[in-house]
Amino acid sequence: MDSRRAESFSDGVFAVAITVLVFNLLPIAGLHELTYRALGHAWPQYAAYVISFLTIGIMWLNHHTLLAQVSRVNRPLLALNLFLLMGVVAIPFPTALVASHLTGPDAEHGQAGRAVVVYGLTMIAISVGYAAIWIYLAAHSEALGGSRQVPAPRSSTLRFTGGNAGYLAGTLLAAFGVPGVALVIFGLLAVYYLFEHLPAPSGGDG
Amino acid sequence: MDSRRAESFSDGVFAVAITVLVFNLLPIAGLHELTYRALGHAWPQYAAYVISFLTIGIMWLNHHTLLAQVSRVNRPLLALNLFLLMGVVAIPFPTALVASHLTGPDAEHGQAGRAVVVYGLTMIAISVGYAAIWIYLAAHSEALGGSRQVPAPRSSTLRFTGGNAGYLAGTLLAAFGVPGVALVIFGLLAVYYLFEHLPAPSGGDG
Amino acid sequence: MDSRRAESFSDGVFAVAITVLVFNLLPIAGLHELTYRALGHAWPQYAAYVISFLTIGIMWLNHHTLLAQVSRVNRPLLALNLFLLMGVVAIPFPTALVASHLTGPDAEHGQAGRAVVVYGLTMIAISVGYAAIWIYLAAHSEALGGSRQVPAPRSSTLRFTGGNAGYLAGTLLAAFGVPGVALVIFGLLAVYYLFEHLPAPSGGDG
Amino acid sequence: MDSRRAESFSDGVFAVAITVLVFNLLPIAGLHELTYRALGHAWPQYAAYVISFLTIGIMWLNHHTLLAQVSRVNRPLLALNLFLLMGVVAIPFPTALVASHLTGPDAEHGQAGRAVVVYGLTMIAISVGYAAIWIYLAAHSEALGGSRQVPAPRSSTLRFTGGNAGYLAGTLLAAFGVPGVALVIFGLLAVYYLFEHLPAPSGGDG
Repeated sequence: MDSRRAESFSDGVFAVAITVLVFNLLPIAGLHELTYRALGHAWPQYAAYVISFLTIGIMWLNHHTLLAQVSRVNRPLLALNLFLLMGVVAIPFPTALVASHLTGPDAEHGQAGRAVVVYGLTMIAISVGYAAIWIYLAAHSEALGGSRQVPAPRSSTLRFTGGNAGYLAGTLLAAFGVPGVALVIFGLLAVYYLFEHLPAPSGGDG
Repeated sequence: MDSRRAESFSDGVFAVAITVLVFNLLPIAGLHELTYRALGHAWPQYAAYVISFLTIGIMWLNHHTLLAQVSRVNRPLLALNLFLLMGVVAIPFPTALVASHLTGPDAEHGQAGRAVVVYGLTMIAISVGYAAIWIYLAAHSEALGGSRQVPAPRSSTLRFTGGNAGYLAGTLLAAFGVPGVALVIFGLLAVYYLFEHLPAPSGGDG
Repeated sequence: MDSRRAESFSDGVFAVAITVLVFNLLPIAGLHELTYRALGHAWPQYAAYVISFLTIGIMWLNHHTLLAQVSRVNRPLLALNLFLLMGVVAIPFPTALVASHLTGPDAEHGQAGRAVVVYGLTMIAISVGYAAIWIYLAAHSEALGGSRQVPAPRSSTLRFTGGNAGYLAGTLLAAFGVPGVALVIFGLLAVYYLFEHLPAPSGGDG
Repeated sequence: MDSRRAESFSDGVFAVAITVLVFNLLPIAGLHELTYRALGHAWPQYAAYVISFLTIGIMWLNHHTLLAQVSRVNRPLLALNLFLLMGVVAIPFPTALVASHLTGPDAEHGQAGRAVVVYGLTMIAISVGYAAIWIYLAAHSEALGGSRQVPAPRSSTLRFTGGNAGYLAGTLLAAFGVPGVALVIFGLLAVYYLFEHLPAPSGGDG
């Protein structure tokens, strides 16, 4: 199958998944008493929206960088892509979990931590999905019409590992009771990856 | 009409339908007490999400295999396609039905079974839609700019029949009170079709 | 602007609008007691889903037939298109209105009728939007890179008028207390337009 | 990256965001007693739907006018685009806020005003996003494969400033207790921008 079809379908899925995030904000509109204080009180919702929006946006970018290396896709690659998208589409769920449990009377009893742990695990699962596609492409690039695969530059491997270390560290911090710091790390990771310049397309940064 | 337009619209519908599945997970975020046990308790929601996600993903793949055989579409084919999409878009409904009724105090009174029956019937209806398009294409391939239709290889007919037998068996098992086994069958069918290599594009596997 | 951009955006809007219809079915999954009788009791929801799905599908088809006549779009045409899409995107609302009020203890007090009136008025408003685009295209076809506009064949004018007469008759019937008959008319209109063969693309059937 | 990919993803996001607006109308279908008076009572919902629909539609148009100037996009431009889309996707939230708080017993206590202020601030934030992209494109047009950037005609600068002045005036009016007038201004701005003829594509009107 032409890789453009798979990209176009994936683009649609990314576009819908990123827009579904607004459903986490809509219940705020049901506030009984609309004061600026009450609106400000909902800050975990806005923070979760911003972090997840940037994260899905960056995933979309990296998805293109990956698939741009080949001109055809085969069944195993489509299957891996479907598993990856299954994680991306699920992101609004941990986002809602964090937004609902980050503050409030129950946050002290570890609920905020557990919510952020689920969020971090989702990110790690998606990273594994990217790594799987990256490894598959590295091994089958020529068969799929890609350029002869140059070995991944050390820098992109480092960067990929660094990102995952960040998600892992955040998840552990959340598990041990510091969910706020974990969220800040997730946000910084998103901003960092957003502005960082990727190497040449053949570098295959996940 | 150029078949690419129909494919592009269908792609959009598939992309939105697959993403709507996350709405089955969002209510879990409203848990009053967020414990890992409570999150684990919602396993039917996750299972239903995964099975339906893979199923819609495979349907998207097969949809392309079908429409790739022709370069034009006519009114009857578009009508058949619309009926097929009507089934695909409905999938989040039986998915929610299964997710809500698979466990819980009422599951013993046959509710889980009835939910899985509705799920299975939806799948069978969609299979009938694919079969209808397949038969129509086999008869009108040349008029629609397709290659001279080779007779469907016996293997793809067998496989198609096998898939439907699986859905039928699952539906019957659910009707007679074993919905869990039925769901496992539906999940295995999805995984099987995901990794199975389709024959050459002209084989028209539904 | 190239008309393909406008078509591609409109395709996306149609694809999402048609998929949003499933949100009318999802609440059925929350049934406290899941029996086949209770599932059957929700038939207005299924009927509304099917009628609206086919209707939006046909609108998508006609939209293409219209825009296929030109290769460029200008600001007034985009404005008209936006008004048309505003009606199409709203369809899930009258659909939900009909689905919720067609049966039940309050249906006798004219609620079903009022719901179907709103549905019919929405369809008439959308028809007016199509007519406006049709008239604009007929007048500016050459300036927009279209073929020299052949006069609309009498048959397509008749058919268009016939469709509107059907929606008007249905709306009036609903207003005077026969909403069921009105819905049957709306459903038959959808099926009729679905299978009817349009004239040559230059006919510009709305 | 080819600018078409970014446009196609953005198109998808705009298409979903504009369709999500219908979710503000769906709760009206749950009216316990369906009378024309009750339906009319929900006019703020309809008004908010229309204003936001036209506004997102115009933003889509302007987005194309902007990106049509270049043939490639780079990382900083994609980041700016993502921030812009983050604002566009959020529009259903202030729309719901206005729709829920414009009328009703609490509207007198300044709730309507605060809702419209949030709406206006969202629009201003999005305008800032457009301005940022405009400025970036003006500086890097040639490097991104665009035509040599002609200086923005005075008229388009004026128009852009005028639009922002309108949003600012509306927000201030809402803050000082005249939310109705503010909403009328927002609606007129949308209609004005809809029919206004943009200058030649190289004018880069935001």
